[in-house]
Amino acid sequence: MVKTIKNKEKPGQSRADTSVASNSAVMEFAADEPLKLDCGKEISPLKIAYQTYGTLNEARSNAILVCHALTGDQHVASEHPETGRPGWWTAMIGPGKSVDTDRYFVICSNVIGGCMGSTGPSTINSDTGTPYGLQLPVITIADMVRAQAMLLGKLEIPDLFCVIGGSMGGMQVLQWAVDYPDRVFAAVPIATAARHTSQNIAFHEVGRQAIMADNDWLGGDYLKHETNPRKGLAVARMTAHITYLSGEALHQKFGRNLQNRAALTYGFDADFQVESYLRYQGSTFVDRFDANSYLYMTRAMDYFDLAGDHGGILANAFKGTFARFCIVSFTSDWLFPTQGNREIVHALNAVGANVSFVEVETDKGHDSFLLDTPEMFATISGFMSAAARKRGLD
Amino acid sequence: MVKTIKNKEKPGQSRADTSVASNSAVMEFAADEPLKLDCGKEISPLKIAYQTYGTLNEARSNAILVCHALTGDQHVASEHPETGRPGWWTAMIGPGKSVDTDRYFVICSNVIGGCMGSTGPSTINSDTGTPYGLQLPVITIADMVRAQAMLLGKLEIPDLFCVIGGSMGGMQVLQWAVDYPDRVFAAVPIATAARHTSQNIAFHEVGRQAIMADNDWLGGDYLKHETNPRKGLAVARMTAHITYLSGEALHQKFGRNLQNRAALTYGFDADFQVESYLRYQGSTFVDRFDANSYLYMTRAMDYFDLAGDHGGILANAFKGTFARFCIVSFTSDWLFPTQGNREIVHALNAVGANVSFVEVETDKGHDSFLLDTPEMFATISGFMSAAARKRGLD
Repeated sequence: MVKTIKNKEKPGQSRADTSVASNSAVMEFAADEPLKLDCGKEISPLKIAYQTYGTLNEARSNAILVCHALTGDQHVASEHPETGRPGWWTAMIGPGKSVDTDRYFVICSNVIGGCMGSTGPSTINSDTGTPYGLQLPVITIADMVRAQAMLLGKLEIPDLFCVIGGSMGGMQVLQWAVDYPDRVFAAVPIATAARHTSQNIAFHEVGRQAIMADNDWLGGDYLKHETNPRKGLAVARMTAHITYLSGEALHQKFGRNLQNRAALTYGFDADFQVESYLRYQGSTFVDRFDANSYLYMTRAMDYFDLAGDHGGILANAFKGTFARFCIVSFTSDWLFPTQGNREIVHALNAVGANVSFVEVETDKGHDSFLLDTPEMFATISGFMSAAARKRGLD
Repeated sequence: MVKTIKNKEKPGQSRADTSVASNSAVMEFAADEPLKLDCGKEISPLKIAYQTYGTLNEARSNAILVCHALTGDQHVASEHPETGRPGWWTAMIGPGKSVDTDRYFVICSNVIGGCMGSTGPSTINSDTGTPYGLQLPVITIADMVRAQAMLLGKLEIPDLFCVIGGSMGGMQVLQWAVDYPDRVFAAVPIATAARHTSQNIAFHEVGRQAIMADNDWLGGDYLKHETNPRKGLAVARMTAHITYLSGEALHQKFGRNLQNRAALTYGFDADFQVESYLRYQGSTFVDRFDANSYLYMTRAMDYFDLAGDHGGILANAFKGTFARFCIVSFTSDWLFPTQGNREIVHALNAVGANVSFVEVETDKGHDSFLLDTPEMFATISGFMSAAARKRGLD
């Protein structure tokens, strides 16, 4: 739990306001400052909602960008305005934590395509006066990163001491190092990969089909009709949630334990704790997440293929990087296995980059990056301190 | 491909007819011969649809019962009457195959709760004149096996030379050895477990929720209203299908290959081959399978826990068995991993049973038991021949 967050006055906020919905600062970009997308289209006007923690130093050299995962948001280290729950990375970020807000200025923005204040499918399309829905162009990881770079430009932060994130956040970290090699001093991609695998795409496709199968989805126009594909989104979340945990973690947490009953009921209610847990995960998720955003986020991940963008050779993607890397994977992560992280290490080694790599032994699966994982904290603390010394941030 | 199947006159067929729907023999049990279920209820009248291959010898000692998996049926080695495709285990069963129909009399019945001619949720409930739907009591693996034993009684087959099956079929094999220890000479459970794990239950629950979320499911009464929860059932199948394959198998088969297009479309169509493949798997499945049956089959597997039924000690379940066992698992099967198969071996060792165990090296995942897996065929051929000699079937 973070008790005291320094929400100091933010630099470069001339055109930022505070969104009631997301309780965040929002940077607005006018029609003459469009976001250019990989698909060839543009988004304008553009909004980026963000949170900051800690204080930017005078040299503007202590900024850390945190990149959030698929269903994450900018509320990394402070209370979520809708759920009232602590920020999703309070274990990692705060005063005295591995990402120490007493030393660094931490920024996290809601990704483009998201649903917590940045432009996404639920945003009103100024051309039509109604929510974008599927009229929003498909977003890529590189588009998300380009938007973050635009935000940092407005905040007058020329370069980043560090970019850090797990899962889809880790993809953004890698993309930062590739697309802005001279603006990243240190990069910490966690539990991620340089491309989405066939199995990853398959699970995402199931989630999307579940959403689209819901009669209330209405071709993506549910907001116009004041409906919500709750059931489909819940099924999508349930499927994905299984992939975030290891079989061993589920076994230890639930086994075959029954839910508030002494015996099997011979029916289709949630007899087992794991069923009840999944239903709960599904039902709470739909209260805080937009179904179309789920489609856009999963598609962005599916499309991610750094090697594919560089002639099929991953090392080529990293040729220009100056960043030092700290790569972390988890033994029981079967969604983003160590092997995929190791491929990144090999590619970085091939271009002579400065890389440290730690595979953390844990049975908690992919979600380990969000959990109390001491070896991860120790690894990142050590890496941060060393990088800060190199950067002259002592 | 099995070219010639000897569909000889079947013994004990006094009350059997041929179902048009399943193109199979159907054994009917009258109201005074109910199937007693684990839940305490009964089903009557009862129908069991089945296929046979090969010839029962005079001593009636060469019968092999094949137990099918979740979405399987009795058409193991002959054309499926609805899809026109070859039987699902023609690689294993036929003249000269590992399960040699020139030597053995092979029986396979559609499980209770299924949708290929045996009593299931789509069967007309004689009490109401409408399909059972969710009025059918929940079925267990032991109930399926009890029904098979009733069928064998009618066929005047006192005991089985062998019971064989994979996945849910393997569960039935284990249940046979436990419940009818003196009627099983040899048992071949493949790619299975003595209990469904928390992760297994979780994936099944997602599938059920997908079906129940479909507006056309109508509380299970869709047949009465001439609808069909096709979308929900397709999503359930897609999810399950991913678990039947290994990540490596998906990678080798599809990788990130695009489907009939040169570049990403920046949309939500099936850009990737794996998406197109999954959608096809979903859409063809709904043409041949009943959504409520899917609920019942998955529930039966979830409830399966042989140790739980015997004081928590798996060895106790096998105390009375006389069968010799051949247990087969696959290295890349993450749904029913080798570890679960090994627990069965340990339990059988603890009661001094005759067990051989082979872990087959393959990257094809759980579905390996249905595929051309030479090491599995060789293992089972050898085991069958040795068991046949012991049984005096030379």
